[in-house]
Amino acid sequence: MIPRTTLLPRPAWVGGVTRVCESDGMVSQEFSEKHRTLLLRARQACATREFWSAYDESPSPRVYGETAAVDGKAAFDAWLSTDFPLITPGSDGTVATERSPYGFDLGVTYPRACDVEALLGAAAAGMKPWRDAGPDARAGVCLEILNRLHARIFELANAVQHTSGQAFVMAFQAGGANALDRALESVAMAHTEMTRTPATALWEKPGPKRDSEPLRMEKTFTVVPRGIALVIGCNTFPTWNSWPGLFASLVTGNPVVVKPHPGAVLPLAITVQVCQEVLVEAGFDPHLVTLAAEEPEDRLAAALAVHPKVRLIDFTGSNAFGDWLEQNASQATVFTEKAGVNTVLLDSTSSFEAMCANLAFSFSLYSGQMCTAPQNVYLPAAGIATDDGTKTPTAVAAGIEAALTRLLGEDKRAVELLGSVVNAGVLERLASTGERGSLLVASREVDHPAYPEATVRTPALVGLEAKDSEVYESECFGPVAYLISTAGTDESIDLFRDTVQRCGAMTASVYSTDDTVIEQAREAALDAGVALSENLLGGVFVNQSAAFSDFHGTGANPAANSAFTDGAYVASRFRVVQSRRHV
Amino acid sequence: MIPRTTLLPRPAWVGGVTRVCESDGMVSQEFSEKHRTLLLRARQACATREFWSAYDESPSPRVYGETAAVDGKAAFDAWLSTDFPLITPGSDGTVATERSPYGFDLGVTYPRACDVEALLGAAAAGMKPWRDAGPDARAGVCLEILNRLHARIFELANAVQHTSGQAFVMAFQAGGANALDRALESVAMAHTEMTRTPATALWEKPGPKRDSEPLRMEKTFTVVPRGIALVIGCNTFPTWNSWPGLFASLVTGNPVVVKPHPGAVLPLAITVQVCQEVLVEAGFDPHLVTLAAEEPEDRLAAALAVHPKVRLIDFTGSNAFGDWLEQNASQATVFTEKAGVNTVLLDSTSSFEAMCANLAFSFSLYSGQMCTAPQNVYLPAAGIATDDGTKTPTAVAAGIEAALTRLLGEDKRAVELLGSVVNAGVLERLASTGERGSLLVASREVDHPAYPEATVRTPALVGLEAKDSEVYESECFGPVAYLISTAGTDESIDLFRDTVQRCGAMTASVYSTDDTVIEQAREAALDAGVALSENLLGGVFVNQSAAFSDFHGTGANPAANSAFTDGAYVASRFRVVQSRRHV
Repeated sequence: MIPRTTLLPRPAWVGGVTRVCESDGMVSQEFSEKHRTLLLRARQACATREFWSAYDESPSPRVYGETAAVDGKAAFDAWLSTDFPLITPGSDGTVATERSPYGFDLGVTYPRACDVEALLGAAAAGMKPWRDAGPDARAGVCLEILNRLHARIFELANAVQHTSGQAFVMAFQAGGANALDRALESVAMAHTEMTRTPATALWEKPGPKRDSEPLRMEKTFTVVPRGIALVIGCNTFPTWNSWPGLFASLVTGNPVVVKPHPGAVLPLAITVQVCQEVLVEAGFDPHLVTLAAEEPEDRLAAALAVHPKVRLIDFTGSNAFGDWLEQNASQATVFTEKAGVNTVLLDSTSSFEAMCANLAFSFSLYSGQMCTAPQNVYLPAAGIATDDGTKTPTAVAAGIEAALTRLLGEDKRAVELLGSVVNAGVLERLASTGERGSLLVASREVDHPAYPEATVRTPALVGLEAKDSEVYESECFGPVAYLISTAGTDESIDLFRDTVQRCGAMTASVYSTDDTVIEQAREAALDAGVALSENLLGGVFVNQSAAFSDFHGTGANPAANSAFTDGAYVASRFRVVQSRRHV
Repeated sequence: MIPRTTLLPRPAWVGGVTRVCESDGMVSQEFSEKHRTLLLRARQACATREFWSAYDESPSPRVYGETAAVDGKAAFDAWLSTDFPLITPGSDGTVATERSPYGFDLGVTYPRACDVEALLGAAAAGMKPWRDAGPDARAGVCLEILNRLHARIFELANAVQHTSGQAFVMAFQAGGANALDRALESVAMAHTEMTRTPATALWEKPGPKRDSEPLRMEKTFTVVPRGIALVIGCNTFPTWNSWPGLFASLVTGNPVVVKPHPGAVLPLAITVQVCQEVLVEAGFDPHLVTLAAEEPEDRLAAALAVHPKVRLIDFTGSNAFGDWLEQNASQATVFTEKAGVNTVLLDSTSSFEAMCANLAFSFSLYSGQMCTAPQNVYLPAAGIATDDGTKTPTAVAAGIEAALTRLLGEDKRAVELLGSVVNAGVLERLASTGERGSLLVASREVDHPAYPEATVRTPALVGLEAKDSEVYESECFGPVAYLISTAGTDESIDLFRDTVQRCGAMTASVYSTDDTVIEQAREAALDAGVALSENLLGGVFVNQSAAFSDFHGTGANPAANSAFTDGAYVASRFRVVQSRRHV
């Protein structure tokens, strides 16, 4: 084990200096110039929605170097059972709340955030120089932060793996490279939005008569922040789900308080550390980004969320708390991603095997512990037309089971797709699947070759009928999917539209060889306000969305009130204040 | 008096057909092509913030034709004591709530909106074809509506004059031409926002290896509406304040329920009539825009505002109801413009006379019954340096009084600037000004040569000290301004920053010949989140903002949570729903 201090020297300002805000603008200008091409390229990608990515998602040594993986693992290991070197203003004591779903306590301690006024006061202290730095300088600082997070991607991947339970490669991709892309996207969209109004304009109004002097004014437009932003992280995607809001708020001038899920603090602690390191280097107050760790019972998020100084909130998590935030944090603009019932419509397919393989992968990935994992699969009780003949629901279940066996039959391979079950709630729901309908495919316990204490499960498939709405109208987070028999595709589509309008969904997909059905499904998806994937038979899965091209969520159904990353996600994070004078 | 029917034929669909939604897209495409150049020009103006205007603000016969004024007056007169030909679904009986501040009842009756479910049901009925028409077609329809409202600008100006009490020329400009510009600005900003994401994109992700096939997907992005929009109008600027929200919501696909102030229904009834006329012509449901008139005690706005189907609310009016909406209509995105304490900082000036003239005009325009009229004038008790020597507060009051006398000395001219007092509340506040401080300039009753029953008053100027915060920290809507003596400009600036942060402001201005003071005022304005006008000595006034260049409000202080018209004002009015498929 490499001693932590040689890897990650404690920043000079920690333990003594708590504020350094003597920015002469030189460093942030350097950052801004260094990353200008990247920023412009990202802005362009957001506008065209073509494929583009800035951070390679392959953890291969050919991409990241021979020692990157080992060094990253060592850096992660070095954090275990140590005090994480962050200062949280107003903290009292420490917390150590993380246990790896692979079976060991992380033992990392963080300051326990306590005094809300002290925390928010410190967060706001550096706001003015940060505001005055302007959009370009702030974007430069944010992109330098992403650059340095990228340099620590293997360390982050380990931290994500051992808090969320994701398998390593997924943690590297979703929690590292793809999360960085989403963060960059958010910075790019916000930069576009901030620079949509010019910094200055000359206004010249012709006089009322031909020979009268025009009225001439010079106008200045300044982007100002809303106030303090609060980011409330989740256990399953601590970086991917938190970074877009964090960077959208930060780049638009707002200090950000990061309140991690008690089960997934380290990835965000590293994030905050890097943010503070770069902020200080550029001459800004480190406490523009702070970590507010807590004991689960502290209810810190609720206390922060309704504080008058908190003007922006990004939340990923339960419907109950998300709805509470939307209703109670009326002083803030609230961006939520909650839960819904992701839907698949099966009507017909040109390749039964490929369809089953694609669905099996979507159910298996991270044991379905994704807000985008499909749950409700509607199909006609009479069966669906396929290249392999008509397939009844039982036959479809068998096809999916066969695909699951191919994918997950070997434990060593299976764990790399399934990851580990993140918490007891998932296991409890899985245990009770049999009570909900007829068990078509049973979940299997998988032994993790490297982590014997990891809880690894394959997906269960439960047969339901259209009348079983009390079962399928709520999210069963984890490796459980429902195969719901309907009177026919028309009923499937009606149920899809109706349940998503009322219960929400992050994703939807349809399989049909009939253009009319596809058209009906698109129409229903528009009515329900959910993105639709059509006939996924290859290497794209409904639970995955690509930054710069796919929006994640829509904000148009109850599962989320916003989307990564559209104009609405960034435009309300700042205001424009103008001044004008005659020239 | 010209019979109403010859001027404004009752639309064919009124009285029988209540829905016509067989759009073949031909007419809206025509509108779209007809107005394409205008739309692009407006989009460009929003981006550059240079001077531009699409609707001439001069009511001159040379611009609008020799008979335009007479015809427009006749059209207005023809409405008096008639039933306005609009159908409001779910209405029961009629209301006639308008009395001209110039001294006569309008006697126009409107359907009394009653059954909220029926109204919202009818509003939503035509939403899908309107959504499917797409951004270009909807923008075409909206710009045709503006075109036809422009053709009725003199009629509208009379309607605005005799509901708000504005003088005719102001009603023509602010209520007609400038309101049309603001509406066009809103359509242009929303169109830019909706088309920021392409309708389709090709996504091609390289395969993991050099020789592997790329993943290719075609993606479709569709703008979908949020739901029903509610526009709550005000008495003083029924068109200027309601049109931006109305058209921003309509062009983004949302049906709009227009709830006018009971004292100012006609301008919005005409608006709704024109909207419905154009919608029907283009094959859409007329009830995509409806008028919800009420008796003042009906509390219809509150009932509509918390209905689950209402997802967007635009409100102009009191702090009490605006705050209530922000806190209680949590199912909707709420855009408010409330009240604040508009501030002037006097430090020094290069032209005492021009400064006094400019301020006198700002106080007098529409008797200060503008959300942008200045109220709190801070100046050092020791006086300000001017080209005419040091001027104490008393001398400044005398200078302003002299300017007021020049401007308003002659009744016939005075009424063209002052307009008429809109309601009894304004008179009551004016009557009690003497109790609040020392009366420096008394208000004068002005006889209106044409309307003897009109209530016309010149502005009062009241002397206060910095300690009188309980007086100057709330808005005194109407022709009352406070001259507040401070210990010096530093205190003036501190009071400015502090009161605006806590009490809000729509406008602020500063007079100083000292660059340092100007810089401090700009800094304070940024901190307080209010737009600043500097050294206005000519034909631009702090209460006026120019569409396409000046933002109205900022959303950054308590007086308003949004601005005409920035990205945040339009971006949340729709969502983008995508679909994707392999190619």
